[in-house]
Amino acid sequence: MSNGHIFIGETIGTAVLILLGGGVCAAVTLKRSKAQGAGWVAISFGWGFAVLGGAYIANGYSGGQLNPAVTLGVAIKSGVWHTVPFYLMGQLLGAMIGAFLVWVAYLGQFQAHLTDPEVIGEGETSPEGPETDRKGRPAGPVLGIFSTGPEIRNPVQNVLTEVIGTAVLVLFILTQGMTKGLALNGTGILLTSLLVVGIGLSLGGPTGYAINPARDLGPRIVHSLLPLPNKGGSDWSYAWIPVLGPLAGAAIAGGLYKLAFT
Amino acid sequence: MSNGHIFIGETIGTAVLILLGGGVCAAVTLKRSKAQGAGWVAISFGWGFAVLGGAYIANGYSGGQLNPAVTLGVAIKSGVWHTVPFYLMGQLLGAMIGAFLVWVAYLGQFQAHLTDPEVIGEGETSPEGPETDRKGRPAGPVLGIFSTGPEIRNPVQNVLTEVIGTAVLVLFILTQGMTKGLALNGTGILLTSLLVVGIGLSLGGPTGYAINPARDLGPRIVHSLLPLPNKGGSDWSYAWIPVLGPLAGAAIAGGLYKLAFT
Amino acid sequence: MSNGHIFIGETIGTAVLILLGGGVCAAVTLKRSKAQGAGWVAISFGWGFAVLGGAYIANGYSGGQLNPAVTLGVAIKSGVWHTVPFYLMGQLLGAMIGAFLVWVAYLGQFQAHLTDPEVIGEGETSPEGPETDRKGRPAGPVLGIFSTGPEIRNPVQNVLTEVIGTAVLVLFILTQGMTKGLALNGTGILLTSLLVVGIGLSLGGPTGYAINPARDLGPRIVHSLLPLPNKGGSDWSYAWIPVLGPLAGAAIAGGLYKLAFT
Amino acid sequence: MSNGHIFIGETIGTAVLILLGGGVCAAVTLKRSKAQGAGWVAISFGWGFAVLGGAYIANGYSGGQLNPAVTLGVAIKSGVWHTVPFYLMGQLLGAMIGAFLVWVAYLGQFQAHLTDPEVIGEGETSPEGPETDRKGRPAGPVLGIFSTGPEIRNPVQNVLTEVIGTAVLVLFILTQGMTKGLALNGTGILLTSLLVVGIGLSLGGPTGYAINPARDLGPRIVHSLLPLPNKGGSDWSYAWIPVLGPLAGAAIAGGLYKLAFT
Repeated sequence: MSNGHIFIGETIGTAVLILLGGGVCAAVTLKRSKAQGAGWVAISFGWGFAVLGGAYIANGYSGGQLNPAVTLGVAIKSGVWHTVPFYLMGQLLGAMIGAFLVWVAYLGQFQAHLTDPEVIGEGETSPEGPETDRKGRPAGPVLGIFSTGPEIRNPVQNVLTEVIGTAVLVLFILTQGMTKGLALNGTGILLTSLLVVGIGLSLGGPTGYAINPARDLGPRIVHSLLPLPNKGGSDWSYAWIPVLGPLAGAAIAGGLYKLAFT
Repeated sequence: MSNGHIFIGETIGTAVLILLGGGVCAAVTLKRSKAQGAGWVAISFGWGFAVLGGAYIANGYSGGQLNPAVTLGVAIKSGVWHTVPFYLMGQLLGAMIGAFLVWVAYLGQFQAHLTDPEVIGEGETSPEGPETDRKGRPAGPVLGIFSTGPEIRNPVQNVLTEVIGTAVLVLFILTQGMTKGLALNGTGILLTSLLVVGIGLSLGGPTGYAINPARDLGPRIVHSLLPLPNKGGSDWSYAWIPVLGPLAGAAIAGGLYKLAFT
Repeated sequence: MSNGHIFIGETIGTAVLILLGGGVCAAVTLKRSKAQGAGWVAISFGWGFAVLGGAYIANGYSGGQLNPAVTLGVAIKSGVWHTVPFYLMGQLLGAMIGAFLVWVAYLGQFQAHLTDPEVIGEGETSPEGPETDRKGRPAGPVLGIFSTGPEIRNPVQNVLTEVIGTAVLVLFILTQGMTKGLALNGTGILLTSLLVVGIGLSLGGPTGYAINPARDLGPRIVHSLLPLPNKGGSDWSYAWIPVLGPLAGAAIAGGLYKLAFT
Repeated sequence: MSNGHIFIGETIGTAVLILLGGGVCAAVTLKRSKAQGAGWVAISFGWGFAVLGGAYIANGYSGGQLNPAVTLGVAIKSGVWHTVPFYLMGQLLGAMIGAFLVWVAYLGQFQAHLTDPEVIGEGETSPEGPETDRKGRPAGPVLGIFSTGPEIRNPVQNVLTEVIGTAVLVLFILTQGMTKGLALNGTGILLTSLLVVGIGLSLGGPTGYAINPARDLGPRIVHSLLPLPNKGGSDWSYAWIPVLGPLAGAAIAGGLYKLAFT
């Protein structure tokens, strides 16, 4: 794999991941979407099959990591670090492209949702400036379509939840080569995507399971840039948690792999 | 693959696709169906497994494309164009057969639904002629079982949503040969059908995701011909969008494949 | 495959099929079940994975047909008829064992459900004898856990719906050998079970999709024999439809296979 | 497989199994979880993909049994008993670690749930001591996140339900080697995890389907040790059922396998 192939694969693959992943959040959240209210089962399968879509598209060029935490885990296992920057650049760029495409695909729904009096609390004004929504909350009403956020704001727990979820994901990927036959039949990504459905169902409750720094940071940047009406804040005070938590989880999984499985 | 095999495979396969895909819309929509109200998760899995059913049945004869957008993408990639007409004819004919079979399978439910006062607004008459329903809308109350329609009527957004969803689908199919092992073990169609579940969950909210011109046009023709009581209009003014959008998306995916992955 | 192996495989496999399939209907229907009200998505996946369970268990001995309609279709394709009786005997016996085990597993729930005043309409008596429930309906309140029944009683439509659903299933199985690789990697049953999820979602609305004569007849016999309180009638007037409809569908699929795919 | 590898594989794999399995129960149950109320479909898929996660991680070292009932069935089939203690120790230890991690991941949600007046019935005191909750029930309000419990307390039925569910699971695993190709392509665990989804949907209604002694006992011990406020009792009087029932079911499956399939 050349660095160029890695960059192209990760950019396009991560764009598809975030397009489909952010897309299901838009589909379930926004007014005048046919899937509004479809619930957590829809969200978990939507993100899992987003991994399936993006990772198979990227697979021939970059392996389809699409996630800096996976890249870190793979680098710890393999000892190959010089390709890491090309993975990370592609992942962040791809995540931003994907978030932008969610906005394009749901253009009318964003408009309808963010101008709905029920949603924005018409008449109130935010006394805390553009970094908050009209009710003074740090996260605007559609930020959840772009980035994750906690139900209970507790940095220690929030980091731990992200560490745990990511460690499961990365350990699963690192041990995949130990199952006879899987390496040859090309279904490893399918299994990983089903595991992501499972992580969403099981560990998504507290923070919305970033388990991927690019998945959270790229769309948050796009949220802060897009000309959405009444969009409120991008909750930058939380942004470090879905970056550092997953990276720590990947490091733990990488260490556990080296300790226990080699 | 002979032209005859292609035509037979695509006709039967697309008929199964539309029978199961239209079927799940009937199941979830119509009164006196056991699945009424089963929601968007049911619809997305129903369409995905409709692809699985139709494409595996057709696979030995035609590859199981079942979709003019896929056929266009494959032709751009392969440079083989002389079989395209046989694919398209089979797909359109199959889609019409499938839509007809949905009507047969749900005969009593269509009758019950379309004579229910709640559904048709008894007593009102449509002042706008047979091309609209009694409330003057261009799309009758069961058109959604046959063809797609937008939640928000905005041609630019509606086309873009179809372009984006189809581009993901076609790019996924075109890059499938790059994953080692998949070409040999016959599970590529399974992966594509799960991706279609994902596209439904993630990008189906605004327009109901045609992502396939035959899937929309064939059943719309059948809707306009069937002797359904109070069926209302077939919304022909929208019909060009789920044809041109997917074809444009496939062209973009084909171009992106040639640019980025070869 | 010896006749003895066929009989053993089909008996055990069909018992598991009906145990899990009837089980999900019990789980979703009965009072004091943790899954009560889980809905049509649960039922469709439950039946699909019931096929997965039963068919893989039986596969090494009998191929895992578990369905007289499949057996008919395979016999038409292969021309091998002398093993058919062993398939049928195993399937019917297995279906009865499976239905009995559903009753054992949900013993307390059946008791609670059938003595609940809301369910049985306490105080009313059935003037039409033990072949009806207290409200005079031919199908008692838990018959749906054992056998299928129509939402709208219309023999022509009911037969047609069963014909169509079964034809899709059998055609899918008969053409499975045409996909390169599938015959070797053992995942054909997985694909069939996902198709059964799809048939349930898409074509289950009108009749509850028997698509298998043994699946319907065996449990109906058990329903008529079990000492359930207030169980009402076993709806024998409907019983021929889920037997003849699926067999006709299988014959059509077998003929279509021979006509179109050979 | 060395005994050390078995112990390590089973410990880590079962920890992941219980983390994800207990996690989905927490996600669906606890207040201030994003997935609260997601229902039985979410729980069944969550546990199934928990098996997928844990068993593939463990597979290279221990085969990924993660369940004393599976270990018993495999020992009956293979006649190899000397590795059994290492399986059991790893499974019990792993289950306890997994349950502890559920608590860490949902720390704030446990706190919020167990101090919510609606949940604990503020003002009432339990007259029956710390082994019951404030309403005198043997099972506290979050015990269901750790261990299983019956909807209807009837030891005979409860044992039978566990016997039946486990027998299906173990028989499926024991016969898996009889399907050509599966042993080579590494997807056996995927099929087992989908069967577990099915067992949950179909047979989970009465008791919550332990079908695994370690899955129930390990977390119950952790529940009794954790410093949860208002946690109520750990329902030790029920604890023997999800241990003995699954073991009996595995013995029956092992015997049936030897009798019918060899």
